[in-house]
Formats: sequence, structure tokens, C-alpha cells
Amino acid sequence: MSDVTRVALDAMGGDNAPGEIVRGAVMAVQQRKDIEILLTGRENVLKEELLKYTYPKDQIRIVGASEVIETAEPPVKAIRGKKDSSIVVAMKMVKDDEADAFVSAGSTGAVLVGGQVLVGRIKGVERPPLAPLLPTLKGVSLLIDCGANVDARPSHLVQFAKMGSIYMESVMGKKNPTVGIVNIGAEEEKGNALVKETFPLLKACKDINFVGSVEAREIPYGNVDVIVCEAFVGNVILKLYEGVGGALLKKVKQGMMTSLRSKIGALLVKPALKATMKDFDASEHGGAPLLGLKGLVVKTHGSSKAKEVCNSILQCVTFKEQNINEKIKAAIQKEQDSCEKREQSEVK
Amino acid sequence: MSDVTRVALDAMGGDNAPGEIVRGAVMAVQQRKDIEILLTGRENVLKEELLKYTYPKDQIRIVGASEVIETAEPPVKAIRGKKDSSIVVAMKMVKDDEADAFVSAGSTGAVLVGGQVLVGRIKGVERPPLAPLLPTLKGVSLLIDCGANVDARPSHLVQFAKMGSIYMESVMGKKNPTVGIVNIGAEEEKGNALVKETFPLLKACKDINFVGSVEAREIPYGNVDVIVCEAFVGNVILKLYEGVGGALLKKVKQGMMTSLRSKIGALLVKPALKATMKDFDASEHGGAPLLGLKGLVVKTHGSSKAKEVCNSILQCVTFKEQNINEKIKAAIQKEQDSCEKREQSEVK
Repeated sequence: MSDVTRVALDAMGGDNAPGEIVRGAVMAVQQRKDIEILLTGRENVLKEELLKYTYPKDQIRIVGASEVIETAEPPVKAIRGKKDSSIVVAMKMVKDDEADAFVSAGSTGAVLVGGQVLVGRIKGVERPPLAPLLPTLKGVSLLIDCGANVDARPSHLVQFAKMGSIYMESVMGKKNPTVGIVNIGAEEEKGNALVKETFPLLKACKDINFVGSVEAREIPYGNVDVIVCEAFVGNVILKLYEGVGGALLKKVKQGMMTSLRSKIGALLVKPALKATMKDFDASEHGGAPLLGLKGLVVKTHGSSKAKEVCNSILQCVTFKEQNINEKIKAAIQKEQDSCEKREQSEVK
Repeated sequence: MSDVTRVALDAMGGDNAPGEIVRGAVMAVQQRKDIEILLTGRENVLKEELLKYTYPKDQIRIVGASEVIETAEPPVKAIRGKKDSSIVVAMKMVKDDEADAFVSAGSTGAVLVGGQVLVGRIKGVERPPLAPLLPTLKGVSLLIDCGANVDARPSHLVQFAKMGSIYMESVMGKKNPTVGIVNIGAEEEKGNALVKETFPLLKACKDINFVGSVEAREIPYGNVDVIVCEAFVGNVILKLYEGVGGALLKKVKQGMMTSLRSKIGALLVKPALKATMKDFDASEHGGAPLLGLKGLVVKTHGSSKAKEVCNSILQCVTFKEQNINEKIKAAIQKEQDSCEKREQSEVK
């Protein structure tokens, strides 16, 4: 295996494309020698953007793609129809092993569909989950799944728990990460049908450090490392996190502007506050990986700026160095072997 | 109908019972002449508590109940087994029309079960939803349902939308309140099976001001008045709201304490900040009504202090004055009439 991580980067996706995406690529190659970036998008536009910077030329290469998939487009149709889009061209490079990873700030739907259709799932993985990192008071937790495939089955959630544990341990360096399932109470008998069916399966799973139910209230305090839920609930959690955070900070700022006294105070607290709040900013923690695919696919926030793009690229290096996909393959294989054994012993 | 609102108050439920509950009752009768409070709980304990205050004696009456239902008890068993508990005694008074409303800071499960079993549903109401008010940047929104009955059907959600609209219009004074369904995207084709089935039903419903999907991110900004979802999702939203809010404020406080400069600033901003943040505190907005029952049942937060208890009691007065239950009855009746008509025309 080569020591260089080759990242296909969708230069046309996201609110700040292509400017911030290209700048993010430049930041990444300025930081590390062992990255090669394959920028996909309109060649002349990207050439012009790159002219703005000084950087090691051999680490960034433009791969022409004439089309762009817009956020509002129906994902399946877009992936099928726009063969020469920056997303499709980049994902095909991952599939053909011309790139190790793919990073995009573009349409989440297109990235999810493209990941499954173009890159393809690891054998045995039933459904690839999208797993963003949530900032907490103790660092970060992995929220798995926030993807587009809702109405999951218990067996999906068990695989999410395993893949999430591998990611937190290998990429985030969390030893023996704790796993919880999102529930509406701490007791085992609580929950909806899905949670009640999944709970005993997770409890019986020896490969993970399952700690039981986690109520949504507890998530921001960071006591659980891997937070398992189906995608509808995950999506609500991810977006509400962002919404409450944003609204509350707006409120705090308003509160500070209500009197002369508080305005002076605000000037004094501002620098310290800004530094602390940075820890609670999801964009500081890189993009969300789509796990269980044959190559790494990372979705960064649509509003990502250069720094987040750069962080997402650097994340790909750790992912490759740690052989995450080999570890996932092994875990899924183990699961299937034990299923076969069970079935065989049942037949006997 | 009498002009006095009779409120049965569970004096033994919640983290701060009976002290804060009794104090809340006293605060309420000091504010309004047209309330009568029936305090249920251990007679000698409550007598002693009441001795601490000066208040209009004829407005508070103790109704003895020797047992207490603890939060951890299985609700159905507790409601059946503890006939002389403060919750069961109070709810029976509502059933027997000796009280108009019931307020409790005790076991949510017991209140939900008791509401259905003892007070009983309005004819035609399929499932009574628990509907707390969420603080937003524009005031409050009603989150319906956060109860204990998960895995709802589309017809339940349609009734929630109707009952929630009546509550927001009549009790909260919001004219023609907007109704949204919690979803993972703005488009009609997005969502899980439940949301996809419910969406067209809400769209076709002429009695409500349906505005489509609402993403969790939007909730804290307060652009939708009635937020419809099934109870598992509602519970996650309610608890995460609380969790993110609490964690973020802790972070803000930490941030202000990092340097001498910011500490001085913190002293200056504190009073203004405290006043602004009060608006974003759920407890300021009274308890959550359990809608669709023959009498009003209000669940206040387990950690409620006197002020929240008092607010919940005052809420009952508006509820009675506005004839909410008559309005709900009429709306459900209308629904059933139109169903019958549809069935008849289909037969023809």
C-alpha cells in the first residue's frame, strides 16, 4: 500500500464552491506531504482558482468534470443522469482505485446514493450509515446513522454500533468506546418497537462496549462515545443540535446588547467566549464519514469553508492509515461466520 | 358553569414536593380569586406546610391521600394498585366532576396512564397527546406529541394537529396557528413511512393551517406554532432541547471564567444575560397539557418549583374559560361526520 493518501475532492459542491474548496485543498497539501488531491470540476474555473496560491504543484491535480449536481436535484436521477458531474467523476475514481477517499460539501442525497451505487458496499454491510461527530462537553461523540435511509431494521443498528466503535477507536483514538442506543427512558423495557428489538441484540454483542439506553438530554454532556439510532431520529438530533445552538447563541448575544453596562462586559468576554465556543462547533471536527463502503466517502457540511474542507481531507489520511475498511470487513465477516455457525447448529 | 376553576393538585409529586408544590398553590390563590385548589396528599404533612403562609383559606382545601406513586414505579401497576395515592385521588375528582383540572409534577408515566384510565378520553379521540410548549426566539411553539405511546398511526397525528391548533389559538392566543410536521427535509417526498402517509392527510385537512415539513433545525427559531410528531421523536426533541441548552450555557459560563478580563466582563453582562435567557427557559411557560381527555390534565416538569406550579395552575383557568374540551369535541365530531359521509358516498 502506498504511503500517499489520494483524495478525490468535489470542487463544485457546497455553498462556498469552488473558492473555499480549492483553498481547503491548498491548506491540506501545505500541511502534509503524504496527500495527493484530485480536484474534480470545471477545469478552467479550477485552474484560475489555483493560480491564487503557492503550493506544492505535484500534490494537486485537476480532473475535468463539466457538470454540477445541485442540492435540490433528486439524487438517484442526478447520479444516473450527470455522468460527467464532479461527484460522479470523483466517486468513479474511488471505485477504480485511482483514489482512496472522496470528500464533498455538495448534495447529501447525491453523496449517499453515489456512495452505494458507484463506490459500493463492503460485502455483508446491509446499509452504509452516515456518521457525523457531535461536539460535547467532553469532546466529541459519533452519531450513527444520520443518512437518508430511514425505517431501519434491528440488524442495521447492530452493524452501525460495530462500525461506529471501530471508527471511534481507530480514527478518534478512543479506547474501548462506549455505545448507547437513543431511547426515551433509561429502562430496557422502554422505547418503540425498533429500540425494544435492538436492545437485547446490542446487549448480546461481545465486540462492543454497550452501556444501554441514552436519553437525548444526555448526549451534549458526552458520556457516551457512539450514539446509535435510525436515520430519522439521527437527522432530528443533528439538526436540532445545530438549531438550538445557533438560536441560543443569538439569544446570548442579544442579552449582552441590552444595556451599556452589558455592552462593555460583552467586549471584555468576547475573546475568551469565542475560544471556548469553538469547541462546540461541529464544523471544527471534520466531515461525516459514510461507513461500510469499499472506499472512504466523507460528507462535509454544505456551508463548509476552507478549514473544514482541509480537516475533512486530513481525516481521510487517518482513516487510510488505520485500515478502517479492513477492520470493518473483519467485523462483518465475524458476524456472518457466527450466524452461519448458529444456523448450522440449529440444523443439527 | 361556575366561574371558579377547581384544580386538583398532586402535592406529593416531583423532586420538590411537597414544599414547592404547596408554595405554588399559595402563589396561585394569592393572584386570583376565581381558583379553588384541592391539594391531594398526606394530610398532616400538607397542613404543616400550609401553616407557613398567609393566604385566602377558603381557596385551598386538603384532600387526604395516604400513598405516593414514585417515578420509578411501573405506571399501570401503580395506578391500579395505589388507590389512595395523591395522583389517583386527584384524578378521580376530575372524573367525578369535583375538579376541572389536575396538575402534577410527579411520574409522567402514571399521569399519562391515569389520564386515560381514570379521567378517560373524549369520544372519538384515538390517543391523548402530551403537548409541552417549547421556548423559541419568537415566543413558544407547541410540540405534540411527547407522551409515552410511541409508534403512532397517521390518523393519530392528524388529531394531534387539530387539538394542538385549538390549544395554541384558544389558550396561547395565537390566531390561525401554523402547523408543521417534523421531517428530515422540506420536500413532500422526504421522510419515513409514517410522515409520508401523514403528509397528504394534513395537507387535505381544512381545519388547520398546515405549512408542510419542519426540519428540527428550524424549531428553535419559532416559525411554526404547532409541531406535530410521534412521541418517540417528540421525546428526543424535548430532551435534546433541554440538554443542548444546559450544556451550552455551562460552556458559556466556563468561557467567561478563563481570564481576569473575561471574569470582569462576566460580572457586567450577568444581569442582562439572565433576563434574556429567562425567555428561553421551558419552565417559565407552565406545564404540558395531556389533550383529548374529559378533564384537563397538566404535567409539569419533575423539577418544578413554586413558580412553575403556579403557572400551570393559572394555565388551567384559561383552558376552562376557553372551553377547550368543547372545541376539541366539536372538531373530532366533525371529523367523524365527514368520515361517515365519505363512507356513505362510497357505498352509493
